Amino acid sequence: MTNPAYFPQLSQLDVSGEMESTYEDIRLTLRVPWVAFGCRVLATFPGYLPLAWRRSAEALITRYAEQAADELRERSLLNIGPLPNLKERLYAAGFDDGEIEKVRRVLYAFNYGNPKYLLLITALSESMQMRPVGGAEVSSELRASIPKGHPKGMDPLLPLVDATKASTEVQGLLKRVADLHYHHGPASDFQALANWPKVLQIVTDEVLAPVARTEQYDAKSRELVTRAPELVRGLPGSAGVQRSELMSMLTPNELAGLTGVLFMYQRFIADITISIIHITECLDGAEAASKSPFPI
Amino acid sequence: MTNPAYFPQLSQLDVSGEMESTYEDIRLTLRVPWVAFGCRVLATFPGYLPLAWRRSAEALITRYAEQAADELRERSLLNIGPLPNLKERLYAAGFDDGEIEKVRRVLYAFNYGNPKYLLLITALSESMQMRPVGGAEVSSELRASIPKGHPKGMDPLLPLVDATKASTEVQGLLKRVADLHYHHGPASDFQALANWPKVLQIVTDEVLAPVARTEQYDAKSRELVTRAPELVRGLPGSAGVQRSELMSMLTPNELAGLTGVLFMYQRFIADITISIIHITECLDGAEAASKSPFPI
Repeated sequence: MTNPAYFPQLSQLDVSGEMESTYEDIRLTLRVPWVAFGCRVLATFPGYLPLAWRRSAEALITRYAEQAADELRERSLLNIGPLPNLKERLYAAGFDDGEIEKVRRVLYAFNYGNPKYLLLITALSESMQMRPVGGAEVSSELRASIPKGHPKGMDPLLPLVDATKASTEVQGLLKRVADLHYHHGPASDFQALANWPKVLQIVTDEVLAPVARTEQYDAKSRELVTRAPELVRGLPGSAGVQRSELMSMLTPNELAGLTGVLFMYQRFIADITISIIHITECLDGAEAASKSPFPI
Repeated sequence: MTNPAYFPQLSQLDVSGEMESTYEDIRLTLRVPWVAFGCRVLATFPGYLPLAWRRSAEALITRYAEQAADELRERSLLNIGPLPNLKERLYAAGFDDGEIEKVRRVLYAFNYGNPKYLLLITALSESMQMRPVGGAEVSSELRASIPKGHPKGMDPLLPLVDATKASTEVQGLLKRVADLHYHHGPASDFQALANWPKVLQIVTDEVLAPVARTEQYDAKSRELVTRAPELVRGLPGSAGVQRSELMSMLTPNELAGLTGVLFMYQRFIADITISIIHITECLDGAEAASKSPFPI
């Protein structure tokens, strides 16, 4: 695979055996319709993702974790105006209400899941860096599990456009939205929006270009990256695997690489959480964008 | 090696053959007395560091690069007061002027080198993420090479304390200063200061603890991480290796891991540049801390 658009990962359609059940359990436990880009990359490190997920699932399915994700989502609203009116822009580009509703469902599904993945990756990253995660005293109410399985009305598996197989135009759009964020590749969120290239083009050029990597955007991202480790320290159970425990299982460069990948995706997912909420705010307003679309 | 203080790397004393000459050429070309933590970790990825360095050395030895590093150093001064008087604190802890001078030499050597490594790692990271680096039109004056070899008065190789072999007390200090920055391990700078455990303790608790990861600190770090890619785009020659070129040379997880490691160290070195300049400011004032200690 020498396509420049390729970033190493195990795609959701290419996994089998233990990795396939890990992917499925992640989606069902977090109640989301995709396995995050970061997790698909972690899956290339032998043995790590299934082990790390087994060690984290119980803490992540708690009401505490759901509320922590709700807090991160609420914090993610950018206060940058004036906001473009995305619905008007989509009407002008020829989309009707039915098509806009399909785009909305995609945005809401990612809005639900992004802050949950931010918690997960933060927990994995902090553990890898040998800092404490979880084990806090929390009430029995917050320690309780939320229901496993996708919320009513959510598609169980969103189709993601594979950048390496997309048209030159779509490859260019995916590259542009990644570079706009100074990212190494496009988030799943943009791979899903790429099913409507015109939508991806409009949100990239008119919604995200004016805000991505501005001072306010970076201050917001910093707020999430700072707050998430505090929240994972408060998890009722431990999560992730400490670096010292992986030394016999991984090679030196795998151990270093995992540390870097986790560090990078913690920041990547914070950015994407902000960007998708900003798009949603431009479509449906601040209230809809910052509340959980699938409250427990 | 199952010591929890261990982070995978090739230490300066353990390299031979091509890697030893790469390490030496990095030190001589950048005119610094150590190979950065980030480079020692990159050295665990087969073939990458010698190749990436060969592709970068010519652009990094230019007067343009020296001036770009000078700019990053000047930008790194934190405006956070009141400053502790480090000299008074060291006198009070029993250090005399001769000992303080030795500490000063270490700080100045790292102050010289940190922004140069920030440029190098930024160039490597941007290339890995398939963004353009170098090739800009610059004047023949800025395109010219600076002298290769250590500046007069600089020790050619600073001794770094190996955390895995240090006393429990020193291991604890190194872990604390790393965690204070939310880093995965201690910078070389702190490994060098660990030769005086009391100095490391004082700078950690009294100089860095009040500022590290505050809003102003993170805003400054963000400024460096934003400015450095602009500066490497302006390099007179290319630097680094593009991800697509490495696909036949590295495994998928090595390719992903390298991307993460470079992303992480770009931010790590920005932080350390700020922290060491802050320590120097507390010792010798803002002017001495933010100017090149070894101007060309």
